[in-house]
Amino acid sequence: MMRVLATLFACFIASASIAEKVVATGDLGVVIERATGSVLIIDQSEMAAIARVEGLGDLSHASVVFSPDQRFAYVFGRDGGLTKLDLATQSIANRVMQSGNAIGGAISDDGQLVAVSNYEPGGVRVFDAETLDMVADIPTQSKTIGLVDAPGRRFVFSLWDAGETWIADLSGQDTRITRFEDVGANPYDALITADGRRYIVGLFGEDGLTAFDLWDETPSPVRILENYGKGDEPLPVYKMPHLEGWALAGDRFVLPAVGHHAVLWIDAQSLTEVGRTKTHGQPVFAVARPDGRHVWVNYAHPDNDTVEVIDSQSGEVIHRLKPGPGVLHMEFTPRGHQLWLSVRDENRIEIYDTRNFLKLGEIAADTPSGIFFTARAHKSGL
Amino acid sequence: MMRVLATLFACFIASASIAEKVVATGDLGVVIERATGSVLIIDQSEMAAIARVEGLGDLSHASVVFSPDQRFAYVFGRDGGLTKLDLATQSIANRVMQSGNAIGGAISDDGQLVAVSNYEPGGVRVFDAETLDMVADIPTQSKTIGLVDAPGRRFVFSLWDAGETWIADLSGQDTRITRFEDVGANPYDALITADGRRYIVGLFGEDGLTAFDLWDETPSPVRILENYGKGDEPLPVYKMPHLEGWALAGDRFVLPAVGHHAVLWIDAQSLTEVGRTKTHGQPVFAVARPDGRHVWVNYAHPDNDTVEVIDSQSGEVIHRLKPGPGVLHMEFTPRGHQLWLSVRDENRIEIYDTRNFLKLGEIAADTPSGIFFTARAHKSGL
Repeated sequence: MMRVLATLFACFIASASIAEKVVATGDLGVVIERATGSVLIIDQSEMAAIARVEGLGDLSHASVVFSPDQRFAYVFGRDGGLTKLDLATQSIANRVMQSGNAIGGAISDDGQLVAVSNYEPGGVRVFDAETLDMVADIPTQSKTIGLVDAPGRRFVFSLWDAGETWIADLSGQDTRITRFEDVGANPYDALITADGRRYIVGLFGEDGLTAFDLWDETPSPVRILENYGKGDEPLPVYKMPHLEGWALAGDRFVLPAVGHHAVLWIDAQSLTEVGRTKTHGQPVFAVARPDGRHVWVNYAHPDNDTVEVIDSQSGEVIHRLKPGPGVLHMEFTPRGHQLWLSVRDENRIEIYDTRNFLKLGEIAADTPSGIFFTARAHKSGL
Repeated sequence: MMRVLATLFACFIASASIAEKVVATGDLGVVIERATGSVLIIDQSEMAAIARVEGLGDLSHASVVFSPDQRFAYVFGRDGGLTKLDLATQSIANRVMQSGNAIGGAISDDGQLVAVSNYEPGGVRVFDAETLDMVADIPTQSKTIGLVDAPGRRFVFSLWDAGETWIADLSGQDTRITRFEDVGANPYDALITADGRRYIVGLFGEDGLTAFDLWDETPSPVRILENYGKGDEPLPVYKMPHLEGWALAGDRFVLPAVGHHAVLWIDAQSLTEVGRTKTHGQPVFAVARPDGRHVWVNYAHPDNDTVEVIDSQSGEVIHRLKPGPGVLHMEFTPRGHQLWLSVRDENRIEIYDTRNFLKLGEIAADTPSGIFFTARAHKSGL
């Protein structure tokens, strides 16, 4: 009898600890620890890391998308590894090596398809989000870059070698490809605007950018911002700004200038430059607070210890902070009350109050780079 | 010994079933069943109801907001009941009767405060989101309407009797109130734009609307759309359109006209009318698909069996459907691939593919009205 009671008691304790382990994932996020092939799972509300998961391979330049229920993160590694991470159980649910060398991925608007952009071999591969079984293989004979999801179970990407943009429509039985040639020399990155309307390609081989209006019945490539390019001096490629950092602030996009200490203000409708703001260094990311009122900017080496905040109405720098060397990435909480940033060379995440710029907390992390909150699950093009 | 084994086995089964019950809440939602004081918890990915929770009191005109981790829904009842619903355990976590008669609520941008707008007694009460303890009581001597959250731990609301708008700032130790008089006669509803910038008040007592630019250092009430009012004929108040339905489509808002079979197109920057589209009936909600390309519109009695879809580029009605009598509310999935709508008088939810307008499924519900997906947790002003 005592043994039964003891067993029951143990059972009760075990059940209670499981019951307490309801993990609500809506305010969680993932931090890439690039040097160690691991990720931290972070909790916004706790302002803390709640778990480290290891064994994700080469995570340099890694990025993350999330399932619609926000339980799973898909981590795209540099070595072609695609890892499905379970945020509830804090473990790897599945992992495939889908190519030899990859750069980024996307998830379809219905959450059922995960696509990866590959360098080696070139092309895009599409996987079932549930099983990670491959459902479409789209070879391109070229490195692919700038892969994004577009509404209607579509993916859009560009070809570094061939100077093309392709739209892959997976809404029907077969994959339908639409190809656009003469997009420009050596597309190096691209973005889709938050409304899924405009796909904009950065060119390494020439000045200017190329834009598509995906709302057109027959979209076509249009050159914009002819003065936007590699700058006055040729620059090494690692200094090209991330285009995914285009931020919509009111009726204007803000965009890192290439090869200048400046951000450009672009009219959101006409896609023409309407102004620029001088900055502390060469911008890498310019990220708008979700309400669009402020834009936070980080910089390339040797100014990557500094972050500046620009008022989107006046265009003026209103605050400067120096978190430390190697500020690689910034992520706002979904409603913008906090900004989280990674300080790679000092192995920490810092958390700021976006109203008064006070530091609210720090989290230890091993060479952190990208920070991705699960709220991205509900946005297009992220 | 056998009893110990049997107990262990039972323990194992119990633990396994708990472990399987990881409830990822990112794709869940709540449907108000107004006649029975109950709610359905719905699952987008399953296209199904997964639970019914009863005992929420009078849910006519009820609305819902969500905690940042998307585990909890706060349901605002007509009878002053404030219910905290746990979507993970599918049960009521807490419930308070906070007034005798209430109309809607909001949650602060940091997710820590829940505010409720009261008719009887008039005023706004603010509660700790964790405990539902009252942390601020803001009497107004007037029915309050149009309560929304604004960035920076603020709430904005208006006074039906007094024709005023108040901003309550709870970012410091004490609640700071800013009052604006002469907002107009009998504000009946209000909205805040998704960027948290503009607070716009509908007036029952006169034509036109009143707008505040909350980005101004010293905001002031400005009359806009002087031709927007009760229409050519006086109408009973229950036909006034919901202002929360203002939808941003590209660079224009679309807005139900009052007393006309039309929606108005409003320039998002100047807040002036730039066009209108004739519709099947008197619009109640005009809701933009998240990408802004289409706007779905439902209508007041006797046309409340019909929904129309308008192309935001051409301004033309491109599709009409007749789900059945009493279409009360429409909610898009966060990335817009589906629209869910309630057909009150036929006791069901219907699910549509927004690309081809095909019906994908139905869910039985008892006199359903509002549909609220948890992705709202990550948006301002909802």
